[in-house]
Amino acid sequence: MRLDSLLPILHWGREYNRETFTSDAIAALIITMMLIPQSLAYALLAGLPPQLGLYASMLPLLLYALVGSSGALSVGPFAISSIMTATALSVAFPESRPEDYLIGAAVLALSSGMMLLMFGVLRLGFLSNFLSFPVITGFISASAIVIAASQLGNLSGLELSGSNLLALLTNLGQGLHGINTPTLALGASAVLGLHVLPNVLKKLATLLRFSRFWADTLSKCSPILMMGLSVLAVVRFDLQQQVAVVGTIPQGLPLLHLPDISGLNWSAERWQSLLGSAALISLIGYVSALSVAQSFAAKRRQRINPNQEAIGLGLANLASGVSGAFPLSASMSRSAVSFNAGAQTPAAGAFTALAVGISTLFMTPFLYYVPIASLAAIILVAVMSLVDIAAIKRVWSYNRSDFAALALTALLTLVQGVELGLISGVVLSITLYLYRSSNPNVAVIGKMPGTEHFRNRLRHKVELNDKIIGVRVDANLYFANARFLEDQVNSLVAQYPDAHHMVLQCSSISDIDTSALESLRSVDRQLRDADMQFHLSEVKGPVMDQLSRSDFIATMSGKVFISHYLAWKTLK
Amino acid sequence: MRLDSLLPILHWGREYNRETFTSDAIAALIITMMLIPQSLAYALLAGLPPQLGLYASMLPLLLYALVGSSGALSVGPFAISSIMTATALSVAFPESRPEDYLIGAAVLALSSGMMLLMFGVLRLGFLSNFLSFPVITGFISASAIVIAASQLGNLSGLELSGSNLLALLTNLGQGLHGINTPTLALGASAVLGLHVLPNVLKKLATLLRFSRFWADTLSKCSPILMMGLSVLAVVRFDLQQQVAVVGTIPQGLPLLHLPDISGLNWSAERWQSLLGSAALISLIGYVSALSVAQSFAAKRRQRINPNQEAIGLGLANLASGVSGAFPLSASMSRSAVSFNAGAQTPAAGAFTALAVGISTLFMTPFLYYVPIASLAAIILVAVMSLVDIAAIKRVWSYNRSDFAALALTALLTLVQGVELGLISGVVLSITLYLYRSSNPNVAVIGKMPGTEHFRNRLRHKVELNDKIIGVRVDANLYFANARFLEDQVNSLVAQYPDAHHMVLQCSSISDIDTSALESLRSVDRQLRDADMQFHLSEVKGPVMDQLSRSDFIATMSGKVFISHYLAWKTLK
Repeated sequence: MRLDSLLPILHWGREYNRETFTSDAIAALIITMMLIPQSLAYALLAGLPPQLGLYASMLPLLLYALVGSSGALSVGPFAISSIMTATALSVAFPESRPEDYLIGAAVLALSSGMMLLMFGVLRLGFLSNFLSFPVITGFISASAIVIAASQLGNLSGLELSGSNLLALLTNLGQGLHGINTPTLALGASAVLGLHVLPNVLKKLATLLRFSRFWADTLSKCSPILMMGLSVLAVVRFDLQQQVAVVGTIPQGLPLLHLPDISGLNWSAERWQSLLGSAALISLIGYVSALSVAQSFAAKRRQRINPNQEAIGLGLANLASGVSGAFPLSASMSRSAVSFNAGAQTPAAGAFTALAVGISTLFMTPFLYYVPIASLAAIILVAVMSLVDIAAIKRVWSYNRSDFAALALTALLTLVQGVELGLISGVVLSITLYLYRSSNPNVAVIGKMPGTEHFRNRLRHKVELNDKIIGVRVDANLYFANARFLEDQVNSLVAQYPDAHHMVLQCSSISDIDTSALESLRSVDRQLRDADMQFHLSEVKGPVMDQLSRSDFIATMSGKVFISHYLAWKTLK
Repeated sequence: MRLDSLLPILHWGREYNRETFTSDAIAALIITMMLIPQSLAYALLAGLPPQLGLYASMLPLLLYALVGSSGALSVGPFAISSIMTATALSVAFPESRPEDYLIGAAVLALSSGMMLLMFGVLRLGFLSNFLSFPVITGFISASAIVIAASQLGNLSGLELSGSNLLALLTNLGQGLHGINTPTLALGASAVLGLHVLPNVLKKLATLLRFSRFWADTLSKCSPILMMGLSVLAVVRFDLQQQVAVVGTIPQGLPLLHLPDISGLNWSAERWQSLLGSAALISLIGYVSALSVAQSFAAKRRQRINPNQEAIGLGLANLASGVSGAFPLSASMSRSAVSFNAGAQTPAAGAFTALAVGISTLFMTPFLYYVPIASLAAIILVAVMSLVDIAAIKRVWSYNRSDFAALALTALLTLVQGVELGLISGVVLSITLYLYRSSNPNVAVIGKMPGTEHFRNRLRHKVELNDKIIGVRVDANLYFANARFLEDQVNSLVAQYPDAHHMVLQCSSISDIDTSALESLRSVDRQLRDADMQFHLSEVKGPVMDQLSRSDFIATMSGKVFISHYLAWKTLK
């Protein structure tokens, strides 16, 4: 571990020049335009005051720039992390007092940060492998739908609570009469605007003979433009009494501090619930950030170090915690924009942090009038792109067992909430994998006439010998199929009463764990009891090394043969 | 599914004759001699009145004889199931009222029975594969130690409670002054007797010129002989006031009934706790019974159907529940004796049930005086054979990661109790397996000069080509290593900046799940972005079938080659 692998800034910082700076700075400006409305919105989504979104977009980005390795990743508030935070807080603090939520959110950010840091330092990145593609797809798509539903209240001025689709829709149905017309009007026009503005701006820019880059850039500013128009509407028609607005945002930068947890009753259950949630939040945040970072890095033939990314995201979350904010990750949509805008190094993130900082110092009077409904519209439009219908279709047509994991994850996420959905999906996909590998293909093999080659007797016309049972197992032998092997051998011994030898062809076996070794021992013992010998053929080098650490080869009833043909020839 | 596979009795019953009857009857007699003291003892171990042990040894054995397929298996109370029952009851009924325990035990037996039945009917036997050999070894050895420690109280007349070693030893240390001398004397001589009697009886029988079979048989009667001697001692020295004895056992057979659960407050937590325990109890009971049954069946070249065994044990447990008794399985030690005594068919179990029934009708006055300390001695001696030091050593020397799972299971079983130990072991062994398979061997391969064979460039002197990267992955591709593959490809692309082609040799890949397919897609996209083509070589038939269910082959940037050599030749 060299220092410049721990601090990638030492690597790219050395080659930093005016050109890279220009690219990064322009990308930072564009991202800031997207990030300011998104950060306010995602703070609200997490059930927290909007300024926390800005706080989560300063120091964390600076720290990530020091240790992170991806130039394109737009670290900061992320919709899925925010809804998971909201769920976690509502479970851990059923009394729902806003001051508890503030402390809880910072505790969640700090714990997620610590966990990610531990992930990176102890090289536990592999834990994210527990999240299979179908589970992530089902989870993110369903979460996006839950998030969208949760914003219907803000869009229409209704009080809406609940952490799953059922509760949200029930509440919505019961409250329909309380719709606030000006809010709904603002919200609906914001949704419309977010769909229409990008194209309008692009066409306008083309008419004004802007270059294609600037036309694209302009269209990315539609959220902040829409926000500006909403503020104008509020001010012009004096709507701030009828429509919920962001309100007073404390001017200035966040004070760095650890959350004061002394005022609360911290039961073991509350800790358990918060830490469990922090683990899930950091895992999902890590996996989605990593896949985004990897796909962009490959486009530039760069390399992402997964453990280093965990450290970067970990420090960013710790920084979010001491800024009094909430867990964050990287937003997929912002990262794509950042990459296309030409962000070259993590410095782009640092510049974004500076721009957000300056805005926080001077823009708060303007933010006062931003309608909550406009922020809800931004969330709604952003998350709908996370529903990945094409991927769901692909999983359906490719593999039904994977689709089952996807469907369960999505269903439980929709009706029970994000945490239970995710956990059930992980458990089911591991169970299904163990199930599949616990029933590997086992073939009785015979000699292909005229060759030294042995194939499945059911698929090929082969020579068999009454005295010798040749068996091939197409799997590594480990605990999930060890007993299956014993069972198969039992059944074969009963089927071939005249056999004296059983030869196991090991060509597709790369690993034999202790459970499988015990099964081999037991197979050997059982064959011996039945007056038979047990042989192995075509054992690979590393597996032979493994076996030689036990006395199995020395004590087994038969021998190890270099090739199955040699075994056949010798034993016949 | 034919009727005679559902009811094996139709199969073996047809060939039943005088000879088989004699073998079965003799074995049944010997087993009854062992079972009566063991069943009383294991009922006490479960925290229940001793007669329940007898009740668990009648109807369940009859039902197993109808549907079970193993002749040697001695179904009935089992030490490990009993201690797990004790733990489950103490958790679910913290008030520890004996009448609640009675109901709880029957509920546990009924739920275990239902679960096992479901296992068998839905062919879920594979679920038992979750229990790897190291986890079972660690669990059973540690449970045996906990059981032995729990009997130190009964052996010495101390009140001893606690469901783990720490609690038991602490209690023992605090209570030492309360030792009851006559109890300790009876207990210690019982332990001594159980060790010495078998040899004494055998030598005596040889002196009396008994045949070897009858000498062996006589030595198996030492527990009941020891019990008889203890009863004589109690009666002769009038010890029943100073020494705890079994006491009044209701005469007659158990009334069949469902437990009356109406009198209790059945909270959701209590159900959850009981059903969770029932799942673990049935899983452990099933796995140990199955491995015993399989090893004996193989000796006679018979076959055990795992799903049928689940049905048999399930019905036995249901019968135990309606007899008002507790969860049962098969005892390893009794089964070995039964096999050696010549039990041929499940009828041996039915005869045992009859013998136990007759004893229950007529022997209860004698059982009144059986000292609890003698039963404790029987448990102590029986369970010590379950501590499998040799297996623990084998795991240690063969595979350290498996040993870690064993050690964690054993440690947590000792210090935290049986349930937590078992669950943690299962979780750890699955995690370790996924960890191992998430880092498969990946080799850059080159052409062995003068051949068409490709090998690892690090192990062999091979020809490489700057334009082509050849890669071999020694594992099935699935979610646990999908991201690893992407990461490796990323790294290779950065390492070989001049390459135009990457060829993945698929000879050791037998399965590609959806997550891996997505990774392949993403690898293909990333290589395309880097102006490279992605090819596959030596794809096995079933994997090709799988892939053809998606559009991957059709849309990938490169081609599929029959052999790696052909790919090399074409692309060069």
